[in-house]
This record gives sequence, C-alpha cells and structure tokens, in this order.
Amino acid sequence: MLILTACAQPSSPKVAAASTSEAVVATSVLPSWQDTAAKKSIVDFVARVTQAGSPDYVPPAERIAVFDNDGTLWLEQPAYVQLVFTLQRIHELAPQHPEWKTEEPFRSVLAGDMKGVAATGETGVAKLLAATHTGMSTSDFRATVHDWMSKAQDPRFKRSYTQLVYQPMLEVLQYMRANGFKTYIVSGGGVEFIRDYSERVYGVPPEHVIGSTAKYKYSFVGGVPTLTRLAQIDNVDDGPGKPASIEHVIGRRPIAAFGNSDGDIQMLEWTTAGPGARLGVIVHHTDAEREYAYDRTSKMGKLDKGLDEAPAKGWVVVDMKQDWKTVFPNATQ
Amino acid sequence: MLILTACAQPSSPKVAAASTSEAVVATSVLPSWQDTAAKKSIVDFVARVTQAGSPDYVPPAERIAVFDNDGTLWLEQPAYVQLVFTLQRIHELAPQHPEWKTEEPFRSVLAGDMKGVAATGETGVAKLLAATHTGMSTSDFRATVHDWMSKAQDPRFKRSYTQLVYQPMLEVLQYMRANGFKTYIVSGGGVEFIRDYSERVYGVPPEHVIGSTAKYKYSFVGGVPTLTRLAQIDNVDDGPGKPASIEHVIGRRPIAAFGNSDGDIQMLEWTTAGPGARLGVIVHHTDAEREYAYDRTSKMGKLDKGLDEAPAKGWVVVDMKQDWKTVFPNATQ
Repeated sequence: MLILTACAQPSSPKVAAASTSEAVVATSVLPSWQDTAAKKSIVDFVARVTQAGSPDYVPPAERIAVFDNDGTLWLEQPAYVQLVFTLQRIHELAPQHPEWKTEEPFRSVLAGDMKGVAATGETGVAKLLAATHTGMSTSDFRATVHDWMSKAQDPRFKRSYTQLVYQPMLEVLQYMRANGFKTYIVSGGGVEFIRDYSERVYGVPPEHVIGSTAKYKYSFVGGVPTLTRLAQIDNVDDGPGKPASIEHVIGRRPIAAFGNSDGDIQMLEWTTAGPGARLGVIVHHTDAEREYAYDRTSKMGKLDKGLDEAPAKGWVVVDMKQDWKTVFPNATQ
Repeated sequence: MLILTACAQPSSPKVAAASTSEAVVATSVLPSWQDTAAKKSIVDFVARVTQAGSPDYVPPAERIAVFDNDGTLWLEQPAYVQLVFTLQRIHELAPQHPEWKTEEPFRSVLAGDMKGVAATGETGVAKLLAATHTGMSTSDFRATVHDWMSKAQDPRFKRSYTQLVYQPMLEVLQYMRANGFKTYIVSGGGVEFIRDYSERVYGVPPEHVIGSTAKYKYSFVGGVPTLTRLAQIDNVDDGPGKPASIEHVIGRRPIAAFGNSDGDIQMLEWTTAGPGARLGVIVHHTDAEREYAYDRTSKMGKLDKGLDEAPAKGWVVVDMKQDWKTVFPNATQ
C-alpha cells in the first residue's frame, strides 16, 4: 500500500512521484487480492491514468471513482442491511402502534411473515419506510441509525454489519485515494444510513456519499431550525438514477466505477463510455462458503444483464472466490 | 495570503502550523478588504476554529463554508446573469421558432418588452427556461453555456461576467481554503451554469457546486449513453431549499455561510444555529458608484428580513462601499 495522502491536487509532486513508481509497488498493493487478472486490471488502470506523460494520464482533479455500496462494499444477503434495520425498527416501534397488529404490511412484519410483506408490494415497502425513516428530524434519524448500527449483528457471521465490509474493497478505496482519486459512494440505499459509518469504515466522508433521499421540510421546531424528513421520495439513486445523481452532485463523469448488480449497469455504462482510459468492475458473488453465491435470479443484488454485457463492454468481473484471498476484515480466510 | 494548499486533512501539521500564525499574518490577508469590523470578524473566526487547542477548534474535515453565488460572489444587477443568458438565447433561437412571434412570453422577449414578460408570471419564466435549458443533452447544454459565457459582456462595465466577480470574495474563498476549509457554492442558479466557470474563476470544483437542477433522463441516443435535460424541476435550491440541499449533498452542517439576500436567510440560520463558533455574513450592496446600491425592495437580491435579523443573529453585514477597497478584479478602485 502506498503511504501517500489522499490529497488530490493538480500537478502535486507527491502524486506524480507515486504514479511513476506504480510498477515497483504493484506486488505490495491490494494485499487481499489474489494475483489474478482482476487485480492486474485495477492496478494497470491506476498506473495508466497516474503516469505523468502517459497518453492516458488524467489530472488528479478528474480522477473520480464511484462505488456502489450494497454487495460492492458490504454484504447484502440475505437482505439489504437497511431492510434489516427497517424490519427491526417496526418491531421496536410496535408498542406505540397497536393498530399495526391488524394493518398490513405491519401485521406481516410483526408475524415474521415475509411472504405476506412481499405480497403488499411497493405500497407496503413505502409504508414501512415512511414509518421508520420519516416524520422525524434529520438529526433524530441519524441518532437512531447510529444507535442501531452500533448494536445490530448479522446472525450468520455474528459480527456487526460494519465489520461485514469487504476487505479487498477497503484496499481498493484506499489505493485509489492514495493515487489521487476522489472516491464516491453511489448507492440505491438511503444516504444518511451510509453516512453513519462511511467515514470511519470506508474513509469516505459524508460529502462523498450519494444515495437515495427523502424530501426535507425546513422549519423552526421549538425555536430551532430543523430539517424534518418527509414521506416523499426526493431521489431514487438506482439504475438510470445513478448517472443522473452523479451528474447532479459531482458534475464530472467518473473514470472508474465499481458495482455488483444490474442496478449498477447504467453507472458502469456512463463511466466507461467516456473518452480515455476507463475502468468498470463488477463484483460477482461466487463464494457460498465465505460469503454468498448468487447472481442471475437473486432477489437482492440480481446480476444478469451485467454478466452478459461485461465481456463486450470490457468490464472486469471479479470472482470473489477466485480473486479474493479474504472477504471480511480480520477474517481467518 | 497564506500559501498553504487547500488540502484538508485531520491533524495535518501544515494546517495546524498555519492556524497558530494566524494573528501574525492577519494584516496581510484579505488585501482588498478595508481594516474594518467586517474583515476582523472573518479573520477572528478563522483564527478561532483553526487554532489548535482552542475551545472553538474545528477539525479540517468539518470546516465547511457555503457561499451563495448571485450577489455574493458575482454581480446580479440589473438582472441575474442566467436570466441575461436566457433572454439572449431566446433571440438566438428565434429563427428556428417562427411561432414565438405571437406566442407569449416569447413575443415580449423578442420585442424587448420586459413588463410583458413579467406579466406572464412563473408560467412564462418556466416556458423560457424550458426553451433554453432543456430538451438537449447535458454535454450540449454545457457547451452552449460555455460558448455564451466566453462571449457575453455586461453593457455597463464592458467586461465578461466572469470578470464581474467580487475580488474581496475571491480572497475569502482562497483564504478559507488555505485554512483547511472546503468551500461550497450553494446557489439558486442552475448548477451547470455555475460549474462552467467555478473552478477557474473561484477555485471551486464542480463537485463543490450545489444549485438548482433539472431532472435528467438517461438513455442511449445514437448508441451513446446520454443524459437529457427534461423540462421538469428536480431541485429548487433557494430559501428553505438551501439547508435541505446542503444536508442532501454535503451531509454536514457548515460552520460558515455567506449570502446577500433574503433567499439566503435559511442557509445562514441553519449554519449559525449549530454549536461552537459560527460565522454568518451578508454582503450588503451599498455602492452605486462602483457596483449597485440596493436592498429592501430590489427585485433581484432583495435584502429586507436579513437586514432586520442580522444584529440579533450575530451575522456580519458587509457594507461594500465601506468595507471593500476594490470590487472587481484588476479594477482601478
């Protein structure tokens, strides 16, 4: 791992120095990656765009890399973490809502009947999100998420969710920042949910997290300026929404994109269709033993079209089982 | 001016070193500012939050400063620059739209009848914006703005609009970045319009520009992934929309805010209501000779409630005539 700071400055001599020594350090970077084609593609790309004088050289200001979150940076099986949060919050809030005993989709959630929840469709999901994510101030919601995240544990791995991030991807984030990249998360998940831990776990500050958002209402509550979360969707940052969010928030086209599902295809297309050297990476979940194996028919993180299109588009498909030495931080394998 | 880089890193020794020498360099910073209370308030605030060991110390990662654009960083009289662009584009596009000769508000624009335009109200403005800002790809719109900006000239000052930015505010932007701040523009104007020149003129990169946005449609046009600007508003970044945008995009509450009109009040409230040292600044246009004098009843940049509330809120009111030695870059006075 290079020990450069993540300070992205045009013509920074430190960054230039790093790039010219790229080939030398290549064997020591990304230590949790096997020395396979996937790792080589990432390291070669970084070398090409950081090498001063290279025809593919990209100034640090334009080195933007975007990363999906669920299934790309942390686990998303057997359910998105934010969905786990939502369902657990329904249970926690139930005593204050006796009407939920008979009202769908709450009745099904409380009865543990996930088929019943699924039968309520998008309307049901919207009701669950409204009940758990809206009607409070942004700071109260943030505190609720923080409290939950610090206590919640995944039943299979017996770890907090923030320990179920992918060690090889943490290394990619750090490696790219060390080479002058700005690393952005571009997720279909709620932006505040990710911001709770993104800085300390990923090294990605709040202002580099793009996600789905609720509309806010600004008003004085008890004499204090307050942003209240409304039960109205502001932005759905998934599928075609990802390039749109990137353009709205960043205003530059990324040169590297990492995803894992068909919801990331448009982000990869948008990123890799630009001129010059481009990197598109799909994390393919192939490791049922260390994590999960899923793709074409998965309910969460479905990867079907992306697998078909990757070869023609030149996207790198990372085979977790083959390409990663380890999956989670401090794991025994 | 300090010669520090704008690299904001927690516990950066360079930033710490700068902050401890703040008092020494105070007389040489902000050279276009008179040595009046306004300048002192800005410099004192920066010294307090950057002084290691100070009770008001703020880590660089949390040093966020937000700036309105029209009337705060560049001129907004006799009309917002983006409105000038819009009206001129109607003239340029008119030959392709013979129907505009009889259709309002186009007829009034082409006849130079601004009262007629005003009479069409918000619906009329929406039609003008739709005709000039939507229906094309983001890259085509960007090229149109860039072309216009490179040619357009203000009739009174005989300068391009990007030369009608405020030299004292350029110094504030640079001064704050030199002290580890991230400087964001938070404008009611269209985000792409500002991004055209923000980096080269203000030193503010595209990803630090927040503004009003149109919805985008993602699709393949001629086989190329394209974002098309739709005639639907995505976000109105003015008034109460400013704190909402700040929370959506930055996800941290700023500690310093600069505005000039009542549309900035909520941003100043939100910023200065947080704990610890806070800075709220209102640029008051008092200089009819060097620029314009306007406030309580102005159609553009109305400053009424803000003037009333500033003393109780502790906001600094900058009197352009008294507090600025010069207004525009390379001006004779």
